[in-house]
Amino acid sequence: MAVQIIRLPQKMQRKALAIRKAGKTIAFVPTMGALHEGHLSLIDLARKKADYVVVSIYVNPTQFGPKEDFSRYPRPFKTDAALCKLRGTDIIFNPDNLYAPDSSTWINEETLSTGLCGGARPGHFRGVTTVVGKLFNLVLPHVAVFGQKDAQQVAVIERMVRDLDFPLKIIRAPITREPDGLAMSSRNIYLSPDERQKAVILSQTLKTAKQMARDGKNPKQIAQTIGKMIAQFAPDARIDYIELRHSQSLIPLKQIVPRKTLVALAVYFGKTRLIDNAVI
Amino acid sequence: MAVQIIRLPQKMQRKALAIRKAGKTIAFVPTMGALHEGHLSLIDLARKKADYVVVSIYVNPTQFGPKEDFSRYPRPFKTDAALCKLRGTDIIFNPDNLYAPDSSTWINEETLSTGLCGGARPGHFRGVTTVVGKLFNLVLPHVAVFGQKDAQQVAVIERMVRDLDFPLKIIRAPITREPDGLAMSSRNIYLSPDERQKAVILSQTLKTAKQMARDGKNPKQIAQTIGKMIAQFAPDARIDYIELRHSQSLIPLKQIVPRKTLVALAVYFGKTRLIDNAVI
Repeated sequence: MAVQIIRLPQKMQRKALAIRKAGKTIAFVPTMGALHEGHLSLIDLARKKADYVVVSIYVNPTQFGPKEDFSRYPRPFKTDAALCKLRGTDIIFNPDNLYAPDSSTWINEETLSTGLCGGARPGHFRGVTTVVGKLFNLVLPHVAVFGQKDAQQVAVIERMVRDLDFPLKIIRAPITREPDGLAMSSRNIYLSPDERQKAVILSQTLKTAKQMARDGKNPKQIAQTIGKMIAQFAPDARIDYIELRHSQSLIPLKQIVPRKTLVALAVYFGKTRLIDNAVI
Repeated sequence: MAVQIIRLPQKMQRKALAIRKAGKTIAFVPTMGALHEGHLSLIDLARKKADYVVVSIYVNPTQFGPKEDFSRYPRPFKTDAALCKLRGTDIIFNPDNLYAPDSSTWINEETLSTGLCGGARPGHFRGVTTVVGKLFNLVLPHVAVFGQKDAQQVAVIERMVRDLDFPLKIIRAPITREPDGLAMSSRNIYLSPDERQKAVILSQTLKTAKQMARDGKNPKQIAQTIGKMIAQFAPDARIDYIELRHSQSLIPLKQIVPRKTLVALAVYFGKTRLIDNAVI
């Protein structure tokens, strides 16, 4: 079946309403394009959850800071569309713009958005919650799939869905990794060959964290060890944060909570900021 | 037909999804109860717009300031339910509580909410937009009816619906008045007999405003005349604001824009703050 590409927001909403009226279900994968195997695994998961899979491709300006990479963010739409089709997407929603020039309404999550990536990227999560709220109202999904790679983002979105009573279910999809362990990211293409090699340390530290938790070490000890490992293996890398928090409430932890402890990292390799995490 | 009373938010949402799945439409009238003929006229209008009429009765704590009348706000549920039934309501949604104790997500309209009632009531519109967004997600209406009495509120809600792409249409219902012209309000019961008599000046000034606009007077002249009329007729009343603004964008006007000029008043009679307006 051919994939349908929709560019107008109102047309997307009308289509979604028609699908629902026909008694069919919608699974939604919101993306900013530059799709890699991580995104495609979300589409695979969505496929199993509903009659229709809608993938949005929209580089959302409101979640980028003034000094961030909005303009240079990759936009390989033709490749993205071909990949979506290959993995069984029914509709690609690819709007030119989702904001009125005098747009003045924002969705703000005020607790889970602070700290972690919200610290280095003020206003980022306000942009994320607002655009995701808009997309939910346009795509009207029964389920929406988000990658666990952006652990804080998915926790914030789950909280928003609960607090604002959106009639849908969030599914967390596991992180997809390169053979050497590097978490897949659209930003990995920015890395120089040397930075790419050094970046493997991130996933290595998460394995160590898992082992240390098993050995009874506490969050502080684990964070310190991770910091040392990164400093030793990649001395030019700049650590933004290393934190152990509850995976849903994102409350900082002094003791390990089994299966609910998020180990979250953000590290700059050159100008490129990479994140990785594990729930242990 | 008997009216159905629903108290659990999840049950309301399931019911709304079932109605939509059956191909039927929903018209929604959100209220805080203490229903008067103004509210009932919204129900009458809703009746004409959809298969099902849902009226919510919920005194929303987040739109009251710390010094406002949340606890003493009237809650005559039995009478309200009887009135809803009489006017042809299908479902009364009467939740005990709509907020989780650790609720942390807010909808903020940042432009139209400032000034007018947003000036005297900081945080009020944040509470309104958040609860209305939640109610939209629980009741899933095709149309929602708001009274023009709360002119700023309906402008803010229209803006929110546009900005966040809610899949529904807002209908503005005209102000319902007592025989002597006083706009109906749940707060009118707070007025002493003397205050009640004096309060009639509000609607009188709006008639004068209309005539002055016809005579070519500008917003500043009209506002000054209204101020004098109130000071003369009700010297104990305290004026909060008298403003002429665009009825949709709420931008302050220096010239009359025909049919789009909102004359908005807020005046305290004793401790009771009354609002009234006209679009001229």
